[in-house]
Amino acid sequence: MSVQQTLNEIRDRIIEEVPKEITISNVEFEGPEVVIYTEDPRKFAKDGDIVRELAKKLRKRVTVRPNVKVLSDPEKARNKIKEIVPDDAGISNIYFDSEFGEATVEAEKPGLVIGKYGSTLREITENIGWTLKVIRKPPIETPIVQSVRQYIRAQSEERKEILKRVGRKIHREPTSEEEWVRTTHLGGSREVGRSSILLTTPESRVLVDCGIKPGSNQTPYLHIPEAYPISDIDAVVITHAHLDHSGLIPLLYKYGYEGPIYCTAPTRDLMALLQLDYIDIAARESDRIPYNSKMVREATKHAILLEYGEVTDIAPDIRLTLHNAGHILGSSMAHFHIGEGLYNVTVTGDFNSGKSRLFDSASNNFPRVEALIMESTYGGAQDNQPSRRRGEDKLVDIVNKTTRRGGKVIIPAFAVGRSQETMLVIEEHMRNGKMDKVPVYLDGMIWEATAIHTTYPEYLNEKIKNRIFHKEKNPFLSDIFHRVDSNNMREEVIKGEPCVILSTSGMLNGGPIIQYFKQLAPDPENNLTFVGYQAEGTLGRRIQKGWDEVPLSGGNERTESVKVRLEIDSIEGFSGHSDRQQLIEFIRSMKSKPEKVLTVHGDEEKCIDLASTLYKKFHMDTLAPKNLETTRYI
Amino acid sequence: MSVQQTLNEIRDRIIEEVPKEITISNVEFEGPEVVIYTEDPRKFAKDGDIVRELAKKLRKRVTVRPNVKVLSDPEKARNKIKEIVPDDAGISNIYFDSEFGEATVEAEKPGLVIGKYGSTLREITENIGWTLKVIRKPPIETPIVQSVRQYIRAQSEERKEILKRVGRKIHREPTSEEEWVRTTHLGGSREVGRSSILLTTPESRVLVDCGIKPGSNQTPYLHIPEAYPISDIDAVVITHAHLDHSGLIPLLYKYGYEGPIYCTAPTRDLMALLQLDYIDIAARESDRIPYNSKMVREATKHAILLEYGEVTDIAPDIRLTLHNAGHILGSSMAHFHIGEGLYNVTVTGDFNSGKSRLFDSASNNFPRVEALIMESTYGGAQDNQPSRRRGEDKLVDIVNKTTRRGGKVIIPAFAVGRSQETMLVIEEHMRNGKMDKVPVYLDGMIWEATAIHTTYPEYLNEKIKNRIFHKEKNPFLSDIFHRVDSNNMREEVIKGEPCVILSTSGMLNGGPIIQYFKQLAPDPENNLTFVGYQAEGTLGRRIQKGWDEVPLSGGNERTESVKVRLEIDSIEGFSGHSDRQQLIEFIRSMKSKPEKVLTVHGDEEKCIDLASTLYKKFHMDTLAPKNLETTRYI
Repeated sequence: MSVQQTLNEIRDRIIEEVPKEITISNVEFEGPEVVIYTEDPRKFAKDGDIVRELAKKLRKRVTVRPNVKVLSDPEKARNKIKEIVPDDAGISNIYFDSEFGEATVEAEKPGLVIGKYGSTLREITENIGWTLKVIRKPPIETPIVQSVRQYIRAQSEERKEILKRVGRKIHREPTSEEEWVRTTHLGGSREVGRSSILLTTPESRVLVDCGIKPGSNQTPYLHIPEAYPISDIDAVVITHAHLDHSGLIPLLYKYGYEGPIYCTAPTRDLMALLQLDYIDIAARESDRIPYNSKMVREATKHAILLEYGEVTDIAPDIRLTLHNAGHILGSSMAHFHIGEGLYNVTVTGDFNSGKSRLFDSASNNFPRVEALIMESTYGGAQDNQPSRRRGEDKLVDIVNKTTRRGGKVIIPAFAVGRSQETMLVIEEHMRNGKMDKVPVYLDGMIWEATAIHTTYPEYLNEKIKNRIFHKEKNPFLSDIFHRVDSNNMREEVIKGEPCVILSTSGMLNGGPIIQYFKQLAPDPENNLTFVGYQAEGTLGRRIQKGWDEVPLSGGNERTESVKVRLEIDSIEGFSGHSDRQQLIEFIRSMKSKPEKVLTVHGDEEKCIDLASTLYKKFHMDTLAPKNLETTRYI
Repeated sequence: MSVQQTLNEIRDRIIEEVPKEITISNVEFEGPEVVIYTEDPRKFAKDGDIVRELAKKLRKRVTVRPNVKVLSDPEKARNKIKEIVPDDAGISNIYFDSEFGEATVEAEKPGLVIGKYGSTLREITENIGWTLKVIRKPPIETPIVQSVRQYIRAQSEERKEILKRVGRKIHREPTSEEEWVRTTHLGGSREVGRSSILLTTPESRVLVDCGIKPGSNQTPYLHIPEAYPISDIDAVVITHAHLDHSGLIPLLYKYGYEGPIYCTAPTRDLMALLQLDYIDIAARESDRIPYNSKMVREATKHAILLEYGEVTDIAPDIRLTLHNAGHILGSSMAHFHIGEGLYNVTVTGDFNSGKSRLFDSASNNFPRVEALIMESTYGGAQDNQPSRRRGEDKLVDIVNKTTRRGGKVIIPAFAVGRSQETMLVIEEHMRNGKMDKVPVYLDGMIWEATAIHTTYPEYLNEKIKNRIFHKEKNPFLSDIFHRVDSNNMREEVIKGEPCVILSTSGMLNGGPIIQYFKQLAPDPENNLTFVGYQAEGTLGRRIQKGWDEVPLSGGNERTESVKVRLEIDSIEGFSGHSDRQQLIEFIRSMKSKPEKVLTVHGDEEKCIDLASTLYKKFHMDTLAPKNLETTRYI
């Protein structure tokens, strides 16, 4: 059955199902959704159940859009919206996108725009024709989110074309009679970095992640025949925004990919932030720059946003559902349902099944998983981490003793994740008096990344979400935090009073942290505390290993040698990753246990050790694949 | 360095090395060889060492060809050859190929044409300009060998073009900076049938075998991206001519492959024989025919013949050496040397490290092998075979008791290998009187295949080779053997006196054996004796399992049911495969033991059992890969 035939069938089915008085002017595939264009959006809006019922019957995501004919004039519509929505919703902006017949309302309190069970939304649509999307006004300004959203709006027409093309590709007629499922490991196997997995069936190819390898120029093996031609890949899925998972996504567009990227909303925005920063740093350090900002925009433009739990067709024989991974904002596990009940593969990405201040712990409640590809960062036999409590106590001690002796504490941290977690710990202990109150300087992309957290509170756990909603309790707005945004200020911090410095990059492979380190390293009164994983090959790992002198290249300058005399500490309880015990417990507590587990994203011996441990404990088929290997599941 | 630059460098080197008085008119890559065109072939011929020295220094195969200007007129040359060569050489034919400046002399005693250390050859070339190739006149007429050789001669011009193209591809400039070695299993993993392995490096792709699966329509997974585009594959290597290794080679040419096939001379001829027979049978049984005889000719045309032990460049980073596998005539193990000492992979193909009447036992004397991909047909824990002696005794008993009670013995056998082995056993025991002398009928391609054995005696062991050279002792010419070459004769045999019938196909999946079986199966006085492996899914396997009634489709007729009342026997000592003990011993006795062994070509549990046994015994990394899986070695 051709795409058009499928579409016609769906259209007939819709006409049959909706009340006679509703006119269906067109039905289209737009990305994974079935979009119904109607001259009667008001009537659709009246009965919220129609769309839900249709979606259930068609087993598709269904969206209703007004036919352009019935849209009120934007100015009139704007006034009407303001008239209907109560003032204390705090509407800050309204954008009209006539391409999608959609008005986006940005408000401080989105709930008041939506109304009980969506009643206010429906009332507005009944009045103005436009369908509504409601977004939260970030409590902290975020230029990146603003510019991403603005860019997406500006590209509305092209977005629509992209979505149509993607939609038709997803719903193409299956052609193969074979049945098999494979993954090929393009990167991130027996190593940390350049995560990239190609999931293939006779019908489709899906790429999960495409990252850089910190401390190395190695990239995922995109040039092997399995990935060729990249332009034909059906879908790219990004588990989370860290560069070792998303850093080379823009490169795919350089190589001819024009397809969709599936990810959560925070992942899209954080990814753009980190990729642009990556280009900046590379340019400053005269590194080879694999792509430019145009490619970052291409990636952004092709993003199709998913929420946790939303089941979505991404290829003729593959359905994707993202689940909370508890690792960083918007981080996901990607669950692939292949065929009609044929097979299920879950790629965990990085996940934390333990507690954190920011997120709910990772979900492992999948209806069915035959194969699990899981991370193994802390999969080694010795990788059980101390409790959070002990980690926090240690940080309190380090800050107190260092600042009391007149030193400074440098904490290298990923902009996204570890930074916010550490900020929350520091804020709490300075507030409750355990930690001396000294200035905490935030450098690199940390401030911006923090702002993005406050833009997407629905991805945070209840406790922190509630605090963010009350300005006076928002921990990120505490007066202990200071943003470093110039070289002058950086120099002042370095020369100034005892303080805590949180800066990127998290593994000292670039970023402003280098400048702090270079100047503060020779003084034994200072302290450098690692709160996150240091990959093999990075400067961070070398320092952690105890090198007492390290070479540093500083942009145009020559390589110089820096003596490492400051105190070195590592705190292990703050990780965004499950520790060994939690990895094992993650499997043990799964309701539906996988038949097969592949361990990836860990040093070689950790991947192998975890695979062997899981085999012994659960008698399941386990494997630590190598890069460039292909595993067949069915 | 471009191909032309490489060639120029080699040319300069040659000019430097050869004596000044020898004119080098051109140097070309033709297939894996460096070909020197000269106006002084006589001078080259005078000193046999020049070419040997050059080959050593260049690390290439070197051939000298006369410039067309210096070739004598063929008629004059013919007379000169006859004048120089002693009469009792028994020259039967001389062909002149001006494209290659080569005269092919077919003689009963090639040694007399060659002379001591090639002295006669050199004398001829000095006189006529043409270089000489000497081939043996087969003691038994072989239409297929004749027609293959005739076809190759007729395609001389195109062959030269092909060789040049292949030569330039082999010597292209390497472009990749990566280093890795992988195999992808396209077929024949955890199964017997459709053997096909893709060996890949960043630079090159080589396909080893491409077979059918007897009793099934399954083909190797040629459509996966790893094999795409097939036209870009660098080389195809065929380990031996059995259809489960070579049956779909012609299909590659249908799919756009235009490259070389590396194999031994007997493999080329046997393969053509079996492929043409395969098409015939498929046509008669109205099966889907995957290719036609034109594609078989394409395959033949692209064959580049190698002898055992000849080291040959087949890609910029891969050298191939074939070694005797002892399985059937011309059967080889393919040893791949990758990079300059980077890695060595050997694919055993089917092999017999035990004794047989026809062949030397398989070689395992490789200078270096890091990875071995080995067959596992008899790799199961119970797969130790009884001795040859016991097998032969059993066959004597079966023939005697069956024919004495008035019955007929049907022996299904592969045309190539098992048939000749069985013929030799029967001939000996009828000659020494242990077995009653009854007529032995040969049907299917057995006669032709036997003739091909006598064409290539250098591929047989010393004992049988010597017997073949003496007409009166040639066992294949014994008067007990009768060739069945018409349907009438077949009917007469079926209705006639007690006898032994050897017929193809070996697993009863087609061929004339079906007709014998259909008519002789209901009579309990007859006997059906298996001497070879019966693959899952074939009629042979069903009968072996004890089905007492089997469905048979007979060409245009409908399927009919045949009652199996005749006596069923299996003799296990005749196999062309190593048994379990021999497989293990093969590894144990290797001088340079592999780090990694992959077990393929066996039922699933046998591959797994052998892998696990070798791991336990030798502590090497072992694996029973699945089809569609990719293993990385380095």
